[in-house]
Amino acid sequence: MTDPKKSGKFKEYLEVERLKINQSLQDYFQVIIDGVNDREMKKIVTEIRNYTMNGGKRVRPILIATAFRMFGGRGDEIYRAAISIELSQSFFLIHDDIMDRSDLRRGFKSFHRKVEEMLGDIKDREHMAESLAIVAGDLAVDYSFDALTRSNFPLTVKFKALQQLVEIIKVTGYGEGLDMFSSAGVKLKMNDLIRLHLRKTAKYTLEGPLLMGSYLAGRDQNLNALKAYGNLVGLAFQLHDDVIGLFGTQEEIGKPPKSDVNEGKQTLLMIKAMERAEKGEKEFIQKCLDSGDINDHDFERLKEIVKNTHSYDYSRWLIERFIESGKRYISQIDGNPEQKEFLEWFADYLVSRRY
Amino acid sequence: MTDPKKSGKFKEYLEVERLKINQSLQDYFQVIIDGVNDREMKKIVTEIRNYTMNGGKRVRPILIATAFRMFGGRGDEIYRAAISIELSQSFFLIHDDIMDRSDLRRGFKSFHRKVEEMLGDIKDREHMAESLAIVAGDLAVDYSFDALTRSNFPLTVKFKALQQLVEIIKVTGYGEGLDMFSSAGVKLKMNDLIRLHLRKTAKYTLEGPLLMGSYLAGRDQNLNALKAYGNLVGLAFQLHDDVIGLFGTQEEIGKPPKSDVNEGKQTLLMIKAMERAEKGEKEFIQKCLDSGDINDHDFERLKEIVKNTHSYDYSRWLIERFIESGKRYISQIDGNPEQKEFLEWFADYLVSRRY
Repeated sequence: MTDPKKSGKFKEYLEVERLKINQSLQDYFQVIIDGVNDREMKKIVTEIRNYTMNGGKRVRPILIATAFRMFGGRGDEIYRAAISIELSQSFFLIHDDIMDRSDLRRGFKSFHRKVEEMLGDIKDREHMAESLAIVAGDLAVDYSFDALTRSNFPLTVKFKALQQLVEIIKVTGYGEGLDMFSSAGVKLKMNDLIRLHLRKTAKYTLEGPLLMGSYLAGRDQNLNALKAYGNLVGLAFQLHDDVIGLFGTQEEIGKPPKSDVNEGKQTLLMIKAMERAEKGEKEFIQKCLDSGDINDHDFERLKEIVKNTHSYDYSRWLIERFIESGKRYISQIDGNPEQKEFLEWFADYLVSRRY
Repeated sequence: MTDPKKSGKFKEYLEVERLKINQSLQDYFQVIIDGVNDREMKKIVTEIRNYTMNGGKRVRPILIATAFRMFGGRGDEIYRAAISIELSQSFFLIHDDIMDRSDLRRGFKSFHRKVEEMLGDIKDREHMAESLAIVAGDLAVDYSFDALTRSNFPLTVKFKALQQLVEIIKVTGYGEGLDMFSSAGVKLKMNDLIRLHLRKTAKYTLEGPLLMGSYLAGRDQNLNALKAYGNLVGLAFQLHDDVIGLFGTQEEIGKPPKSDVNEGKQTLLMIKAMERAEKGEKEFIQKCLDSGDINDHDFERLKEIVKNTHSYDYSRWLIERFIESGKRYISQIDGNPEQKEFLEWFADYLVSRRY
């Protein structure tokens, strides 16, 4: 972030990569949509494509491509494999929005809401839309494996990447389940929360994609430093996301600013504030998390408590610590300097989103 | 069916195979459950195991093992790969029951109902249970791929089997979506229905597993006769299942006898009865399918109409025709006579369930 020239170069890299990923997704969906015979299901699959194409920074597939090149991989075939993680992302988000009852995603309608609109005047419309969204998510995870198997890589490396994809989906599933229990009131301690973030975010946003790219380049040893980078930066990313989730605007979050609180999410911000607040405030925080529909006044007071207890500062401090520790591992990665330099810049970039 | 000695031998074969599949599933789940750290998610994954172990004839994995041996495959490693289709089955059924709002499956509680019971006194319990069931289904499909990748087969054949699994899940997903549109009132013609059955049943119950077993044995050519057998017998199986669904008892169906009608399912029985009934009866049938909760008197009258219009006879006739055509393809399969003989017996066996 310090060197604006470097920053400009890497931002351009992100943009060029993003476009290539999008092109590869478009190409993949064209083949898939052409293969669907029924009018109704063609519409649903087309909606999966639209949903996948709507926004998204493509961070995960870009990390696959970056790790691939860092370990000597070349050429554009990597994009055909890298989109697999973006298709998994659609799978997670489509199901997630049903579970969280979200109406919005990335500023657009969530998948089941969009389908509800498409269905028009049909009996039991809401349930039908949710059911079709369950099927759509199921198709998306299948597309994810499909895209990876279709990409043209030596079987041994492709297989290893596929096993990593299996692992990512498993770990993320455990994280999602745990997240649900926590929203339902199962109390999380600090180390439960770290474990949850490692699962729900670090694995599938950072560590998993970096490993997939490494495997596809034929590298399957000496990856510990890269894994450590992925886990630490992944943790920071989630903590930062939670800060934006409380203090950001609707535009920055992509859904209503009160969503996290209304879902009863036990973020580090809440846990630390609870730990440090006085008795009356503790009860107030709990009341907010249990409310399901917090009012403006309470929401402002909640944010004040988070600031006054220095819970906000603690999150910011921890984010920085994780980022710095993550970056320190980069020198131990035995790969090309160009991509290593990018990873260093990228760690800061990931947590630089304003709010 | 004609030769009781042969029938006894094959029934014993089914039973022995079923036990081996169950053992392999138990072994797999033990490894998976041991790998889960959180108390809450351990309970959920244990429930996935219990759900998978409860009943189930294991027809699909047995077909994988049979095709494998028919083309010269040997040894017990096949069971470790074959369970993948049974794990996919759990994935389909868990999600299916949410979509169909079923309380029962195979005579036991459906997954989301079971989880609801487990959750005890928790806020928003029904939605939480459904959400955890969505995650559980997502985990089950991931386990399905996981089990297959872990089995010890040459990479090339394992990869081909995996691509077939991807195809099965895709095609079945399209079938499920189409099924939902049909239940919601999109009218099916005879050939739409056949296409639906080919997707939702024949592919994933017969043709797909037979192909997976063939690929795992290293056979990937001259499979057209086997595919034809799978599709025809698969169609017959679905039609027979629909007959049981209308005329069977709760015990035979595994859920309440009125379920199919209450779900508004357009089975061949309904479509043909509609075609052949008089105007008043046509309207009555439609009323029954739209009702969502048919009464005993109407249910009996509906069954009478299906009999009187000879729609019942037509289904029975078509089932027999499909079975006979399917069996005729067996002689063209270039494989071991022992398994070919089994497939011949098995076609009749599949549609011999009483009701």
